[in-house]
Amino acid sequence: MSQPYSLIDATLFTQHAGAELYINLSAIVQNYHYLKQKVTPAQCGAVVKANAYGLGMIPVAQALAKTGCREFFVAHLDEGIALRSILGKEYLIYVLHGVPHGTESIYLEHHLIPILNDVHQLRNWVSLCKDHHNSYQAGIQFDTGMSRFGIGQDELFELQHIDWNIFQPALVMSHLACADTPNHPANQQQLEQFQALKQLVPNSRASLAASSGIFLGNNWHFDLIRAGIALYGGNPIPDQPNPMQNVISLQGKIIQTRYIPKGASIGYGATFTAPKDMRLALISIGYADGFFRAFSNKISAISPKFPTIPLALLGRVSMDSLCLDITDLPENGIQIGDKIEIIGNHYPIDILAQQADTIGYEILTSLGNRYHRIYT
Amino acid sequence: MSQPYSLIDATLFTQHAGAELYINLSAIVQNYHYLKQKVTPAQCGAVVKANAYGLGMIPVAQALAKTGCREFFVAHLDEGIALRSILGKEYLIYVLHGVPHGTESIYLEHHLIPILNDVHQLRNWVSLCKDHHNSYQAGIQFDTGMSRFGIGQDELFELQHIDWNIFQPALVMSHLACADTPNHPANQQQLEQFQALKQLVPNSRASLAASSGIFLGNNWHFDLIRAGIALYGGNPIPDQPNPMQNVISLQGKIIQTRYIPKGASIGYGATFTAPKDMRLALISIGYADGFFRAFSNKISAISPKFPTIPLALLGRVSMDSLCLDITDLPENGIQIGDKIEIIGNHYPIDILAQQADTIGYEILTSLGNRYHRIYT
Repeated sequence: MSQPYSLIDATLFTQHAGAELYINLSAIVQNYHYLKQKVTPAQCGAVVKANAYGLGMIPVAQALAKTGCREFFVAHLDEGIALRSILGKEYLIYVLHGVPHGTESIYLEHHLIPILNDVHQLRNWVSLCKDHHNSYQAGIQFDTGMSRFGIGQDELFELQHIDWNIFQPALVMSHLACADTPNHPANQQQLEQFQALKQLVPNSRASLAASSGIFLGNNWHFDLIRAGIALYGGNPIPDQPNPMQNVISLQGKIIQTRYIPKGASIGYGATFTAPKDMRLALISIGYADGFFRAFSNKISAISPKFPTIPLALLGRVSMDSLCLDITDLPENGIQIGDKIEIIGNHYPIDILAQQADTIGYEILTSLGNRYHRIYT
Repeated sequence: MSQPYSLIDATLFTQHAGAELYINLSAIVQNYHYLKQKVTPAQCGAVVKANAYGLGMIPVAQALAKTGCREFFVAHLDEGIALRSILGKEYLIYVLHGVPHGTESIYLEHHLIPILNDVHQLRNWVSLCKDHHNSYQAGIQFDTGMSRFGIGQDELFELQHIDWNIFQPALVMSHLACADTPNHPANQQQLEQFQALKQLVPNSRASLAASSGIFLGNNWHFDLIRAGIALYGGNPIPDQPNPMQNVISLQGKIIQTRYIPKGASIGYGATFTAPKDMRLALISIGYADGFFRAFSNKISAISPKFPTIPLALLGRVSMDSLCLDITDLPENGIQIGDKIEIIGNHYPIDILAQQADTIGYEILTSLGNRYHRIYT
């Protein structure tokens, strides 16, 4: 039994939701233009896989298409089909996870461009082109040192047998493993290897850099860059100030306030004991909303009314709620239903991520289904 | 602009999905009966908040209702409305996050039972009952030491003013902070406090224990227990063997295999270097699917064809993929499209959770939207 599931998705949670997630499409568009200008004359494509890093593939892609973006990257075939349903054929949609044998016709039907990641996929695609006397669009990925997607060094000899008159690749690409660490020797090594490999495929456009790769310099840009995390406000150059606009604001609602005496303990496992009489606010966001349990006892939030007073998260994050210290707020300054900024300008995704020993990308892709999503 | 979002949900991902998530409804039903028997003569309710801990509230609640469960707990009002749409009025639905002022009529319309968590909510509800000459169903929660939901010690004096002839609570409840640690002194303290507090509300049913609380003993059972994680296969008694049936199996598909030479590095940040020539399999599951980046370099998986050979996860978990060591599998034993068990009987949620320094609950609630969900 493959049952319907759609009753419980983000469309269910609107005015009664426990939190509002504001997604600033204008900021995404501004970030796009900043990156586009930076890489000119290369083209700037947008990576909208994983539901546009959790922010909503449909509204994000619509905004980017409207502002001039013509090339989009998804991971899964199903993501590509959904994206094609809202984008005309003049937009290029690349599917990074390749084309499992037997699915070729689905790619053609939806005008999707698979990235061929191994020689089996390449051989099958060339056969298809030969049989149909049509050079169907597909890209080729080479592995240049990440040991992930792409044709490996040990498979290169197979390329000798390809007739590039039958199949003319739309794109040759690879992916950098350490682009967010500019001084890592892998960046130069991968660049040199990619330069050599792309010679094996005549007359194709080339793409190596994603967000962080843009900032390594022009040599890494080639014909097309694939902007992802930087569009969504993540810092592509972690050792420097973030040049990108913040995109999201997560505002949790206060569902209860309480006073506790000195010595009372808070939350599961009683991991926090009040050092003094305190006042607490319970916020309707928990780890089931993708707000990691790893944030327990580690982060702070802000009331927009009192933006200079950090409100520490006390105790463990529960499945559906978390607890903030509001002792330092004025007695009548805050009430049930008020919104508290949990992620936003005060606590951007990269700063939060450090507290959970992860990266801003995972903060975004984990944003849950129970937030009321509001696009601005 | 509050945009439609439903194009990208779990209904989109079926036969081309990168992974299959099998959810064994029979196991949930068996777990229910195990717990029900254990707590008799108390009643056994089911906690299906957070989309039934990520497993799908609608199919899970349908299965439990069919097997005799009559009482359900959700966190959010919107969850209650969705659940009521598939359950007749003979089923009781409690909403744990309470009733913000102004939403009372919505609870009545959908026959939902709010848990009143503070004196404001209690006062408003009693007024409503008085005005309409009707004792509408609602529960009352007391805080007994977790400092989370519920009426606190400092608010108890307010109860003197309540006329229990006007409003007869459906339930008096509280929640244990340390029930998974049987020897924690908080368990006895909370029990004693709850016993005292429930005397303040005459003739009401009482509920204190969730899954772990069941195993503390009969004293903690009262009239109704609220079974959650144990229904879904999590171990409610972490220091002992798990008495519950495993419920889920997550099977990721192989999208590429490759050989790498000794000295090659794997994944972002080049965190793993091959100590010998190796063979790898790329699996179509990543942290955007809720499979934590914290598992990087830490866990293993299993091919059902070779269940005695653990396949180590190498390098960092990427957004959409992860990499396994298949060097020890027979050369032709495995191929593209084969499924690898990432979570299941070999690697149950509680064991995995330890590797990411969290609990099985968070593994479940993080299960992503891109899996093909198959109910068995």
